[in-house]
Amino acid sequence: MIKVGIVGVGTVGSSVVKILQENADIITARSGKKIVPVMGVVKNLSKKRDIDIPLSDNVDDVLQNDDIDVVVELMGGVDDAFAVVKKALLSKKAVVTANKALLAYHRFELRDIAGDTPIGYEASVAGGIPIIKALREGLSANHIQSIKGIMNGTCNYILTKMMNEKATFENVLKEAQALGYAEADPTFDVGGFDAAHKLLILASIAYGIDVKPEDILIEGIENIDNEDIFFAKEFGYNIKLLTIAKKSGNQVQLRVHPALVPMSQMIAKVDGVMNGISVVGDRVGETMYYGPGAGGNATASAVISDLIDIARSGKKSPMLGFKKPLENCNLTLMNSDDIETKYYIRIKVADKIGVLSQISQVLGAQGISIGSFLQKPDVQDESNAILLFSTHTCKEKDIQIALKQIGSLVFVKEKPAMIRIES
Amino acid sequence: MIKVGIVGVGTVGSSVVKILQENADIITARSGKKIVPVMGVVKNLSKKRDIDIPLSDNVDDVLQNDDIDVVVELMGGVDDAFAVVKKALLSKKAVVTANKALLAYHRFELRDIAGDTPIGYEASVAGGIPIIKALREGLSANHIQSIKGIMNGTCNYILTKMMNEKATFENVLKEAQALGYAEADPTFDVGGFDAAHKLLILASIAYGIDVKPEDILIEGIENIDNEDIFFAKEFGYNIKLLTIAKKSGNQVQLRVHPALVPMSQMIAKVDGVMNGISVVGDRVGETMYYGPGAGGNATASAVISDLIDIARSGKKSPMLGFKKPLENCNLTLMNSDDIETKYYIRIKVADKIGVLSQISQVLGAQGISIGSFLQKPDVQDESNAILLFSTHTCKEKDIQIALKQIGSLVFVKEKPAMIRIES
Repeated sequence: MIKVGIVGVGTVGSSVVKILQENADIITARSGKKIVPVMGVVKNLSKKRDIDIPLSDNVDDVLQNDDIDVVVELMGGVDDAFAVVKKALLSKKAVVTANKALLAYHRFELRDIAGDTPIGYEASVAGGIPIIKALREGLSANHIQSIKGIMNGTCNYILTKMMNEKATFENVLKEAQALGYAEADPTFDVGGFDAAHKLLILASIAYGIDVKPEDILIEGIENIDNEDIFFAKEFGYNIKLLTIAKKSGNQVQLRVHPALVPMSQMIAKVDGVMNGISVVGDRVGETMYYGPGAGGNATASAVISDLIDIARSGKKSPMLGFKKPLENCNLTLMNSDDIETKYYIRIKVADKIGVLSQISQVLGAQGISIGSFLQKPDVQDESNAILLFSTHTCKEKDIQIALKQIGSLVFVKEKPAMIRIES
Repeated sequence: MIKVGIVGVGTVGSSVVKILQENADIITARSGKKIVPVMGVVKNLSKKRDIDIPLSDNVDDVLQNDDIDVVVELMGGVDDAFAVVKKALLSKKAVVTANKALLAYHRFELRDIAGDTPIGYEASVAGGIPIIKALREGLSANHIQSIKGIMNGTCNYILTKMMNEKATFENVLKEAQALGYAEADPTFDVGGFDAAHKLLILASIAYGIDVKPEDILIEGIENIDNEDIFFAKEFGYNIKLLTIAKKSGNQVQLRVHPALVPMSQMIAKVDGVMNGISVVGDRVGETMYYGPGAGGNATASAVISDLIDIARSGKKSPMLGFKKPLENCNLTLMNSDDIETKYYIRIKVADKIGVLSQISQVLGAQGISIGSFLQKPDVQDESNAILLFSTHTCKEKDIQIALKQIGSLVFVKEKPAMIRIES
């Protein structure tokens, strides 16, 4: 029998308890052992909960309980969770966590503290999709060339609605909040930070690279406009908040931002609150993983898969997928100035002669050539025009300089907007 | 160090050798051990091969070699392969196989022979997609409600071309043969048998059910007609060769046949030679896995992931995912007469008054009601008409009786065609 203590018994924790109890038949058959939730730790003991296990408000009732084999950490946050997980690992209790923020900041420390003690975190990325397992075990023969993920359901819901219904960002966000798909303060989701945490976890498995959220390029979807949607449709793209990890020589690009993705790509077809992750390996080519990225049951499904792995065999795959440091690879993070891709640009200008030529000159001076171009009247002010460009491949640094210069031209009416194109 | 002997060094075997050698850096880092191919067994030693390992034409040079830890079986076929794998397992050598036919017939015997000796077969289903791992480990908390797969690239290539280009089955098959996507004798692929082998492997993990290919409903794509393509497009379907495992109470449906799939489903978007498998778990909901289902490198990627799993930890997940028999579940195969679904029917008739009424009567007498209906002129003979129906949900047995009766009506010009609808 494996005895489990659960620290944090909210939506996911309750689902973990219920599934362990209600699916005990299949779980016992698959793991060879009974996996029993024996104690839950909560902040507020007086809150009514629809689950059947003993509760405590003292975490030491789990951490100092010699009877408990595995600690499931579902409390969230970084510092307190780190203290709990560290204490559990030091007393040789296995740990399963769904806490992406904890891992985004402390995954390498936790690996070192854990040593041979299992630490599972399948639930920390893309909820019910077994992407950690796919990357750490399923694709282990490959050098990973790229990971492109849709890993925030809130953003994908908003962007899908904007694509399908010509609704504005503000209106869809309100609707998503009403439906419970977005938080009252949506910044963590729509600003790309949640997705960035997940990206860092995947990148450490793919590349063994230890960087923090502050080190990478993160842009949210707040400035996506209906003109961008129009351009995307016109040229056969979908707009998605992508998490991108990509190897170029000894450097790794890590970035989170909205992107125009050709409709023909599988990842472009992941709509609504669903998540999808495309992984390209040097030998296997592209594989893609799709499913629910959030929700109590989906996340609990991943938590329990880790518990079953632990029950089946004390010895697990190495936490970050590597048993030895990747000395030969020696990968470093690419400076985001050096990213090379195609770009889409939106510029609102006074509708005058010579405007296009001046903008082209600025782009040309940075070595940026135009791929396609559309001009639309500004329906809010007919003395303005809206210019929509896509570029051929160029450097991030050059496009940033060009956009700054274009933004300061007298006839330009607002800060130019830019979305990267991933094709 | 893990020493590997490879029995059968064709396309996949050569890729295994090359990847183990060329990606040794990452494979050693991930597994903690060197994984070295030390011997290949081939039928014809004089054939030139572009790989760098010692070769033998005597399988005992691998099987009786105490130095070899793992036997990779890539020889194909059922009986000889079974003998080799059995011998390897009995001498406590771990086995990795890509042989779906072997497993379709002998997976439960092999599990019993293997005992604690690892036997990996990730490569046997859907090539480079880690679907065995997803099902056996990633979704292990769930009762599996259904599996719907596109697991034969040849069929999917042909059907995609037929959908996109109005080409006939015969012409696309010829093209696929010229491109190397279809064999000279394509029966094993287009008849659904290859897909059925893979389905049985997945079904034994999901349901612990031991049945043989002969026990299940298998239909191929040979009779798909351009009228069927027309109807599918008209009503928002794609046509796919689906492998279906579905739990209904204590029974499991296992079937392979072409199906009309609503365009909105992710599985309907898997085009060309690619594979995709949708799995619905009772807790996680739907997850989907997409990637290359064949090819030397993709298949070798899966073979090596098994080798790395073995190197990381002698103790693996149980071969078929269960450590104890599923006594509580006690699932049996559903008789295909009892399948309930919607159907699409194509009937070529003499274009006369009263025809439709007589056909409706036959359907009505079996309790089958019509969902949608289209009539088209027969471009080859204008005295005929082509009737295209979809039905509401009804029983397989009833539709089979109705089709037989309709086929014997005097004005019906050829055997009615039927495609099941999966929505």
